[in-house]
Amino acid sequence: MSILIIGSMAFDAIETPYGKTGKIVGGSASFISLAAAKQTKDIGLVAVVGEDFDMDFLNGLKNDGIDTSGVQIKKGEKSFFWSGKYHLDMNSRDTLVTELNVLGDFDPIIPEHLAQPDYVMLGNLAPAVQISTLNRLKKKPKLTVLDTMNFWMDIALDDLKEVITMVDVLTINDEEARQLSGEYSLVKAAAKIREMGPQTLIIKKGEHGALLFGQEDEIFFCPALPLEEVFDPTGAGDSFAGGFLGYMASKNATDFETMKQAIVYGSATASFCVEKFGTERIAQLSEEELHERARKFISLSAVSL
Amino acid sequence: MSILIIGSMAFDAIETPYGKTGKIVGGSASFISLAAAKQTKDIGLVAVVGEDFDMDFLNGLKNDGIDTSGVQIKKGEKSFFWSGKYHLDMNSRDTLVTELNVLGDFDPIIPEHLAQPDYVMLGNLAPAVQISTLNRLKKKPKLTVLDTMNFWMDIALDDLKEVITMVDVLTINDEEARQLSGEYSLVKAAAKIREMGPQTLIIKKGEHGALLFGQEDEIFFCPALPLEEVFDPTGAGDSFAGGFLGYMASKNATDFETMKQAIVYGSATASFCVEKFGTERIAQLSEEELHERARKFISLSAVSL
Repeated sequence: MSILIIGSMAFDAIETPYGKTGKIVGGSASFISLAAAKQTKDIGLVAVVGEDFDMDFLNGLKNDGIDTSGVQIKKGEKSFFWSGKYHLDMNSRDTLVTELNVLGDFDPIIPEHLAQPDYVMLGNLAPAVQISTLNRLKKKPKLTVLDTMNFWMDIALDDLKEVITMVDVLTINDEEARQLSGEYSLVKAAAKIREMGPQTLIIKKGEHGALLFGQEDEIFFCPALPLEEVFDPTGAGDSFAGGFLGYMASKNATDFETMKQAIVYGSATASFCVEKFGTERIAQLSEEELHERARKFISLSAVSL
Repeated sequence: MSILIIGSMAFDAIETPYGKTGKIVGGSASFISLAAAKQTKDIGLVAVVGEDFDMDFLNGLKNDGIDTSGVQIKKGEKSFFWSGKYHLDMNSRDTLVTELNVLGDFDPIIPEHLAQPDYVMLGNLAPAVQISTLNRLKKKPKLTVLDTMNFWMDIALDDLKEVITMVDVLTINDEEARQLSGEYSLVKAAAKIREMGPQTLIIKKGEHGALLFGQEDEIFFCPALPLEEVFDPTGAGDSFAGGFLGYMASKNATDFETMKQAIVYGSATASFCVEKFGTERIAQLSEEELHERARKFISLSAVSL
């Protein structure tokens, strides 16, 4: 089934306790599309980059079967740039540099042939751009998933609240769920956020797994695989979202049981992402590795009484 | 199968965001024995209290079928007293008062008829007292479980390292595992700690669940049930340990598969503990409620591909 992905494509410069990179490819759409393409084809991408962007990376996406005709390349302009440094616990980080560049006035133009997707992933981006994207679709998708972050809660809360009413699934992390709802308990936070619009809420807890909240008190928890090392957490949430939506599209389903399986695949995808800097590990990932890791996630909590 | 439990019996005064208690019964042995008694009989208790202790509580344990003949009641002396205040997140707390009283020179005298237990739970207590207890047993138990805390790592590390070599299962929380091993990754921490002695390690992560590490990379994760409210976390770890050992003894088994089930029962028991102040909820808990909660834990992460 067809997927449309919109999000940022960027250069990142990352420092973790394990090392430091120069400018490498990052951005929500980069991770999401690489991750989704492991499980399904017929993927369209809408994004904007500058003339300085890594064209080998874009060509790699094309080779993965991703339609990149919706990626605008702005002559004479520079790509979005983010630089950050992770603390020792890898759960927190300082942003050192943010240069919006081409992302500052991003107008998401959707090529005609990509405007009727079955599945939509709105990667982390200004909520106003996410709204424009949805308004430009030619038909209602079967499933729309939105990812966002606390930054937009701080500076664009009204837009964010609006786009939240337009989607089926919202994915945010635990701190963001608390900020958005004003509730410390994640059970209470989930109830409040689901009242804001999305029928389904996924709360990502990083090394502590992910919670899926559906209608009528449906709840599912997927653990995170305990890892020897987290090398670079950048893009883990995006890889999770891409793995989740790629699975849903591959099954062409929107029910809760399939979402439970999709969360396992999202978590498995994210567990690879953190093994190397940037998009490197996800780019290399084979389908067989992904299936094997998903089975490992399932066996981690498998028990019967 | 027979269980021997040793640990503290105490008065606690607790303040949480939900309220404040006067002196109520607490202590590791109080929670552990109440919890274990939900699942098995033939339990012996070794502890020490002052003349001021709550004799109704002790009689309640007897009514639950617990042999309290190993509980020393020190005439003219006062029971161990601890007072603490939890922060808003319930994950951290300040100790306001610690009065060791009778616990200061506790000599664990094991009545003859309790000295050949099949299962032993060494609740949180000075490691030297835990060592004495093991040395006074008349035969080697089938399974010995040790609980401890960072406090003993700070002031009695050598004793702690010694007692760790004498037990089969160690239960500690994630921060303590990091402190004891010097490793941030829990996978690496578990490997190091298992080299120190215990074949099995349980790392309690509070609201984030519990990890079980066995031999040859055996690993199991039990999630925590997302709760609307945590009322008072005091005793949750002890209730977990009591529920765990009670289950093992009820099955008369020491294998990894049974430990996985036992961790579910430990987690379920702990999830009740936090619903009210002190031992109140565990004391009221019915067997049927416990089984139902255990099934809820299993279904929370149940998924097949």
